[in-house]
Amino acid sequence: MAKVFDAAEVAKHNTPESCWVILYGKVYDVTDFLSSHPGGSKIILKLSGKDATEEYDPIHPPGTLEELKPEACLGIVDPATLPKDEAPAKPQEPAAGPPPMQNLLNLDEIEEVATKQVSQKAWAYYYSASDDKFSKRFNNEVYRSILLRPRVFVDCTKCDLDTSVLGHKLGMPIYVSPAAMARLGHPSGEAGIAEACRSFGAMQVISNNASMTPEQIVKDAAPDQVFGWQLYVQVDRKKSEAMLARINKLKAIKFIVLTLDAPVPGKREEDERNSLVGATAPVSSGVKAADRSADGTPDVSGPGGSGGVGQQLFAGTDPSLTWQETLPWLAKHTDLPIILKGLQTHEDAYLASLHAPQVKGIILSNHGGRALDTAPPAVHTLLEIRKYCPEVFDKLEVHVDGGIRRGTDVVKALCLGAKAVGLGRPALWGLAAGGPDGVRRTLQILADETKTCMRLLGVETVDALGPQHINTRMVEQQIYDGPSALDSLRRAFRAKL
Amino acid sequence: MAKVFDAAEVAKHNTPESCWVILYGKVYDVTDFLSSHPGGSKIILKLSGKDATEEYDPIHPPGTLEELKPEACLGIVDPATLPKDEAPAKPQEPAAGPPPMQNLLNLDEIEEVATKQVSQKAWAYYYSASDDKFSKRFNNEVYRSILLRPRVFVDCTKCDLDTSVLGHKLGMPIYVSPAAMARLGHPSGEAGIAEACRSFGAMQVISNNASMTPEQIVKDAAPDQVFGWQLYVQVDRKKSEAMLARINKLKAIKFIVLTLDAPVPGKREEDERNSLVGATAPVSSGVKAADRSADGTPDVSGPGGSGGVGQQLFAGTDPSLTWQETLPWLAKHTDLPIILKGLQTHEDAYLASLHAPQVKGIILSNHGGRALDTAPPAVHTLLEIRKYCPEVFDKLEVHVDGGIRRGTDVVKALCLGAKAVGLGRPALWGLAAGGPDGVRRTLQILADETKTCMRLLGVETVDALGPQHINTRMVEQQIYDGPSALDSLRRAFRAKL
Amino acid sequence: MAKVFDAAEVAKHNTPESCWVILYGKVYDVTDFLSSHPGGSKIILKLSGKDATEEYDPIHPPGTLEELKPEACLGIVDPATLPKDEAPAKPQEPAAGPPPMQNLLNLDEIEEVATKQVSQKAWAYYYSASDDKFSKRFNNEVYRSILLRPRVFVDCTKCDLDTSVLGHKLGMPIYVSPAAMARLGHPSGEAGIAEACRSFGAMQVISNNASMTPEQIVKDAAPDQVFGWQLYVQVDRKKSEAMLARINKLKAIKFIVLTLDAPVPGKREEDERNSLVGATAPVSSGVKAADRSADGTPDVSGPGGSGGVGQQLFAGTDPSLTWQETLPWLAKHTDLPIILKGLQTHEDAYLASLHAPQVKGIILSNHGGRALDTAPPAVHTLLEIRKYCPEVFDKLEVHVDGGIRRGTDVVKALCLGAKAVGLGRPALWGLAAGGPDGVRRTLQILADETKTCMRLLGVETVDALGPQHINTRMVEQQIYDGPSALDSLRRAFRAKL
Amino acid sequence: MAKVFDAAEVAKHNTPESCWVILYGKVYDVTDFLSSHPGGSKIILKLSGKDATEEYDPIHPPGTLEELKPEACLGIVDPATLPKDEAPAKPQEPAAGPPPMQNLLNLDEIEEVATKQVSQKAWAYYYSASDDKFSKRFNNEVYRSILLRPRVFVDCTKCDLDTSVLGHKLGMPIYVSPAAMARLGHPSGEAGIAEACRSFGAMQVISNNASMTPEQIVKDAAPDQVFGWQLYVQVDRKKSEAMLARINKLKAIKFIVLTLDAPVPGKREEDERNSLVGATAPVSSGVKAADRSADGTPDVSGPGGSGGVGQQLFAGTDPSLTWQETLPWLAKHTDLPIILKGLQTHEDAYLASLHAPQVKGIILSNHGGRALDTAPPAVHTLLEIRKYCPEVFDKLEVHVDGGIRRGTDVVKALCLGAKAVGLGRPALWGLAAGGPDGVRRTLQILADETKTCMRLLGVETVDALGPQHINTRMVEQQIYDGPSALDSLRRAFRAKL
Repeated sequence: MAKVFDAAEVAKHNTPESCWVILYGKVYDVTDFLSSHPGGSKIILKLSGKDATEEYDPIHPPGTLEELKPEACLGIVDPATLPKDEAPAKPQEPAAGPPPMQNLLNLDEIEEVATKQVSQKAWAYYYSASDDKFSKRFNNEVYRSILLRPRVFVDCTKCDLDTSVLGHKLGMPIYVSPAAMARLGHPSGEAGIAEACRSFGAMQVISNNASMTPEQIVKDAAPDQVFGWQLYVQVDRKKSEAMLARINKLKAIKFIVLTLDAPVPGKREEDERNSLVGATAPVSSGVKAADRSADGTPDVSGPGGSGGVGQQLFAGTDPSLTWQETLPWLAKHTDLPIILKGLQTHEDAYLASLHAPQVKGIILSNHGGRALDTAPPAVHTLLEIRKYCPEVFDKLEVHVDGGIRRGTDVVKALCLGAKAVGLGRPALWGLAAGGPDGVRRTLQILADETKTCMRLLGVETVDALGPQHINTRMVEQQIYDGPSALDSLRRAFRAKL
Repeated sequence: MAKVFDAAEVAKHNTPESCWVILYGKVYDVTDFLSSHPGGSKIILKLSGKDATEEYDPIHPPGTLEELKPEACLGIVDPATLPKDEAPAKPQEPAAGPPPMQNLLNLDEIEEVATKQVSQKAWAYYYSASDDKFSKRFNNEVYRSILLRPRVFVDCTKCDLDTSVLGHKLGMPIYVSPAAMARLGHPSGEAGIAEACRSFGAMQVISNNASMTPEQIVKDAAPDQVFGWQLYVQVDRKKSEAMLARINKLKAIKFIVLTLDAPVPGKREEDERNSLVGATAPVSSGVKAADRSADGTPDVSGPGGSGGVGQQLFAGTDPSLTWQETLPWLAKHTDLPIILKGLQTHEDAYLASLHAPQVKGIILSNHGGRALDTAPPAVHTLLEIRKYCPEVFDKLEVHVDGGIRRGTDVVKALCLGAKAVGLGRPALWGLAAGGPDGVRRTLQILADETKTCMRLLGVETVDALGPQHINTRMVEQQIYDGPSALDSLRRAFRAKL
Repeated sequence: MAKVFDAAEVAKHNTPESCWVILYGKVYDVTDFLSSHPGGSKIILKLSGKDATEEYDPIHPPGTLEELKPEACLGIVDPATLPKDEAPAKPQEPAAGPPPMQNLLNLDEIEEVATKQVSQKAWAYYYSASDDKFSKRFNNEVYRSILLRPRVFVDCTKCDLDTSVLGHKLGMPIYVSPAAMARLGHPSGEAGIAEACRSFGAMQVISNNASMTPEQIVKDAAPDQVFGWQLYVQVDRKKSEAMLARINKLKAIKFIVLTLDAPVPGKREEDERNSLVGATAPVSSGVKAADRSADGTPDVSGPGGSGGVGQQLFAGTDPSLTWQETLPWLAKHTDLPIILKGLQTHEDAYLASLHAPQVKGIILSNHGGRALDTAPPAVHTLLEIRKYCPEVFDKLEVHVDGGIRRGTDVVKALCLGAKAVGLGRPALWGLAAGGPDGVRRTLQILADETKTCMRLLGVETVDALGPQHINTRMVEQQIYDGPSALDSLRRAFRAKL
Repeated sequence: MAKVFDAAEVAKHNTPESCWVILYGKVYDVTDFLSSHPGGSKIILKLSGKDATEEYDPIHPPGTLEELKPEACLGIVDPATLPKDEAPAKPQEPAAGPPPMQNLLNLDEIEEVATKQVSQKAWAYYYSASDDKFSKRFNNEVYRSILLRPRVFVDCTKCDLDTSVLGHKLGMPIYVSPAAMARLGHPSGEAGIAEACRSFGAMQVISNNASMTPEQIVKDAAPDQVFGWQLYVQVDRKKSEAMLARINKLKAIKFIVLTLDAPVPGKREEDERNSLVGATAPVSSGVKAADRSADGTPDVSGPGGSGGVGQQLFAGTDPSLTWQETLPWLAKHTDLPIILKGLQTHEDAYLASLHAPQVKGIILSNHGGRALDTAPPAVHTLLEIRKYCPEVFDKLEVHVDGGIRRGTDVVKALCLGAKAVGLGRPALWGLAAGGPDGVRRTLQILADETKTCMRLLGVETVDALGPQHINTRMVEQQIYDGPSALDSLRRAFRAKL
């Protein structure tokens, strides 16, 4: 019979020496686990001695608790002894709830509704981008500076969004990029996104940091539904290898997306700022934190809070990946095709093309402006590749994400050579606004806008879109014009073979 | 003797199975007509069982009811049984009405006055443009980035706006573009615009979707007054052929304007949003609407409302027009000269020139930014033609519309080779602000500004304006610079001869 | 003995048939004068039967009344019978008055103070520019896009603003451009500006529409003070010839500035709008005014008000000036050197240089943005001349005005080849803010800023400034790049000799 | 025994003929000193007869009073007779104080907190820049228009900010530029900044106008801490020579920074405006001040106030420095390496390189936008040097300052060839926000951001950063493109040897 604890007893164990937490009504001793918590010990200590379920639940996939040793579960807490949560007591505003999804006309309206629906924490995590959010804004604005070239007297009765990725048929060239922590926005989480994608034959790339397990997410997939799985390689390679073994077994998952643009986390200030609110841990002395560390340079240290959701999620990520080491390691642990995500220069796109056929595709992305501020938008990289090494498009599938808000944006990316276009935040905002229906509405709007745009250009199929349909003159004046190292890259690569 | 119905009786017939409406005091059974209503059945069902006159009147030309079978008219309604309209009961603000038109100094002020005068529905239809209204704004702003080059010591005592279009003399190079639904703004409708044009010898192109019949509009025309008639080819070609037969009989109409830039409607969100207000029909489930349709892609579907005036007007428009099929068909049904409207690339302008002499002119237009957002303004297309195939100006008359707000805008378009310049929204705003006097004021202001500009440039006649009078350096840096397919277009065209 | 009238008696004469006005206590019958009033009869009729002194005084130079026939003065009005002016009765805010001029740090602050000091009418006339005021703003902003190139390790102990214009020594390269109606802003009027210029050895160009006579303005001039006189040639050439005869006698006036950029008035909407306020004349029917006039084009007609101060001042100006006719006519009536004002293209600058030595200089100006909106700023014309025909700088003195607000602006214009730089509105704002002291403060600020700028560039004298001190790269990308007609201009000119 | 004065007695001596002030409880007769006060006599007279300690203290280094003759100290004031300061009497807001420094996430937040902490006078002095602050803003914005080029698949486990300046090892390539008057912001003053720099191995350049003596500032320096000392050469060279002699003795000071970009003060309006507040001295007549001075040009004269802190600090600065005279003079008085500060053209950078090895480095700077408005940012000058004379980077160390607000800004400057990057205002804002901890937080944030940026670029050490990591295409379109005088500069230099 499980031992029953008073909440007051649990509350005494709130130190690094003895740290208990209550989760789903059970009492856990996590003292030994503190040092290996991927998000750091500080965040646990803040909740030590208390019921941490509400904070724990939306950001940990089910099964996470099983990673603890069985003896860590000490028993159950007597619910009657828990402090009353006074917040629900106060009569809330008559829960207006979101408007009918069908009445939302564009992605900005959906974001607006979602902003009102979600917690401050979720908003901060979803909305944030690095530093001054220049790249986040520029990702979108750069599409505005490309003009379309509609042709007339073309029969546009038919218009078809069908396409394929790595040979798999898709209902539209728009997919959901790996975006973490969907349950922060809506309880249906990443499975809710999968449900919406199923309605459209749309592809979904599952985040390494999803708030549900891959198995849960793909459980109700349609037979022909296409998923990718995003990998952040962990310093502890065994963990990544275990995950790959699980992924290899899921037939719905057709490829691995190896994310490369965030070997260390960007500085997302909304997210970090939010972590300061209600921070109860004593703020460590600025003087001490700034003292020179042993190697002569200061340690990287975040603000007084926990560093935000983004910082926590990065814990354990391996910053040492290289072309030479990582791709062979990956080949040993999966036969799935590899797509590299986060390329931002023509040099790296070219290098990736040298690694075909193991590498089958690349996603041009600056991580939604969340990694390095003033990094170039995917449109720039597309134009750079067209300028310096257009042969990349023949050897690899090229995808893009970041900044897509309109069907015209989708079309412009496709005209420049992208095979498909990913949505990050819009999928999360859709989910937060209305659950699976909200994601459906998001995809529906973009699909409708994309088809309208194609029809007005006089184009019937996705494959027929090309650079002749757009005027990129203004953007071309911003594209990198310096020396290119392609020749030396090629020589260096061959020398290694 | 006509049968008399109680309103309560009529109210019972509000289903797709039995759908009655009251129009101008008469009761109609439109059940059979529901499926063939160009604007869709939903909009009728919303009004079923009620007096629909107020909604019906401003957007249907007289004579529309005659298209119903005679037996559809069941009788008359007893006016005493109609529900009282409570809105007029409330004492209104002392109806200030618009200020004297002469006191309005520019087109922005006229729009401001009109905005206060018209219904929300009319405002939304007139004001709206596609997506983010980028093209609508850019249409105007691009004129601001062209500088004028005034010459001095030129006798500018005389200045003359006289010009001609297709050989017909005109009092000014400014005309009214086809703009639908004028009676939404003012009861005098398109005939009111015609009255104003008569005062200036200005040309008017009658919209295919005018709220009055062409016969009504040209009824009081001056002997030398010039009209064109805009054609949206209908899927049911018989309807278009019947209309052309009517037009061929109207001597005031000198040419056909075939609109090509909107084979499918653009996404005009103000207009669609307005249709949501007061939408009483139950909003259909977003989930259901988004389910994959048979061909594997989702159906295009609007928001919960009726889709806006713009969407309704497009019902029945044929999206399958081509150079090969449509022009010969048109030649069979009219001998009137053809002007093609909505060209936005030099390629299409060049193709049009190959179809002279059947095609006598082209109108460079992005539909006032109402079709495809981020489509280029007419100024871009003018510069593109000058760059790639200036011979087009010798073979065709080139007109432009979109974004004209000042006389300097008119002059700049003429300097770049436009023969005449069309006004869309400004004519509607003028009408809405003050009826025919408001349109006169609009034309007067533009004519005055145009003459002042020509005098200060040192130019006496419209024909003398040329590129030497403007500095387009800033805009030229935005013009399409990609490969041109003119050679292959020429070869393909000749192969077909 | 003068006849004494009751105001009530005068009030009856308020028609075109019998039109009396009271001016400075005297009663005038101006019925016969109505048709020849330069500002049109409407403005007089509005004041007919009333005391018009307040409106008349600030815009008519003393001596204007003498142009009436002596018998037009009927007598005096009995002051006791005049209606009481109620406005002064209400206790005003304690008249704060302007702050000490020395506390104003820049020209924007002076304009701000002036705006509070002057009447709405004066503000509207001074502030207004044509159409959307694009050129007015651009005149200033273009200076912001030129960067300075300060040199170091240069002895800048000495710095000297001395320069000369047409061989006359000046204390600074900053002068007051012809700006009309100074007494609207301050009772000291143009003589107050002259007093301020005397303090600095600064030059002043007297407006043709000055609110004081040239004789009054130069009365207290220092022996070495330099004036120019601006000429608007009148349709009635005798009037201009009479004025030239008067000017020829004034030794302080060293040259004639012939204004060419405003043969017809620009559209200054603030000024016109102001004329609508309190317009009591019935607004003429828009319909009637818009009816086609005899020559097939509508008449230019202003709004319901009087058309604004600007429109009135232009009455009588000759729009027929030409190189061939006007310069020889001018040579017959004055031996003074000629400076042509308002050139905006390199072609006209070049043509002017062919007319040396009669023409000794040119002023590049777009009339402060008051003539043609989107006309180029003087900086553009300077760069155009440098690009196409730099030899102009050797043959003529080149001045500029428009948009100067900082000493750095002055320096940039001088670096590009301007010999001197004119101020229009800033002189009027200075006068309005603080009378002669306000103008002095304006000149002082600019002189100080100019010297600071020169010192920091490492330049000791005005003559040493050159293009090497500025970076115009950004502006050069805006300069006219089209074909130049210089060769044909040269040939045409020689053919006429 | 010191004589004791009543405050009332002191108050009588408030004229130029007898001017006493109270400082730190002692009474001084400064009548004889009035004319030689570097800040002018006016500022002293305003405080004459009163206790001036509060105004005197933060802007004078200790020891300044010793420059007075001993007999100037007349005695002490009876504290009981001093007027009560009523300000402290009013109950203040509960002194919230600044938030914990660790909670401030970026430099803008630190400036915001500092703005609330400091006096209006300090804010105005720190914040102000010349004229319209165009250069101040542009200094920062120009970094936003440079894009980064992150490379992927690079091991970024290690990242090291270590670098060196003139052979001295530093913990980071970010240093504190000479910034005057630190005690205005925080009592720890420049020594507080030194304390913070010590924590990071960061370099500090001590301002010539520091509010503490160099000896005090370096007193607690770490053995390997690096300082430079900024020199404004005084008209009275003996003073500068005496200071150099003192500096030569301080081992912590490794080089002299000779400031060249401000031979005369810029026009800093916030600072000047602040000096008007509470100005009690009668405002001198604008008329009189503006009268022409003897040499024919007006005297430079400030506003009615004291001219601001900036103006006062410049008193005595020698504006006559030249390459020929000043460098040899300097060589006679110090053996320390020379860094020239304030170069803004490639010509001057090139000239500096000809003066190696006496000149060892240059700092590209426009004085934080405080000298000449519209002067180019350091980024422009870096690109100019790269374009015209890249060999400069081989001969001299090149530093920059101005506009740095983010680690990405630091990285971009380093990529363009800067060896180190200086902070001016941010160090002062940091000090004002939180004393030494605030400066530490400022340096910590920038160091963290810089390392994050380097890691995401795939760069391990400062030396490895290069132009291949950035896209400067947009900025390059702004760089000076005119003729360069390098050849003639070289010949002229050689001729002198």
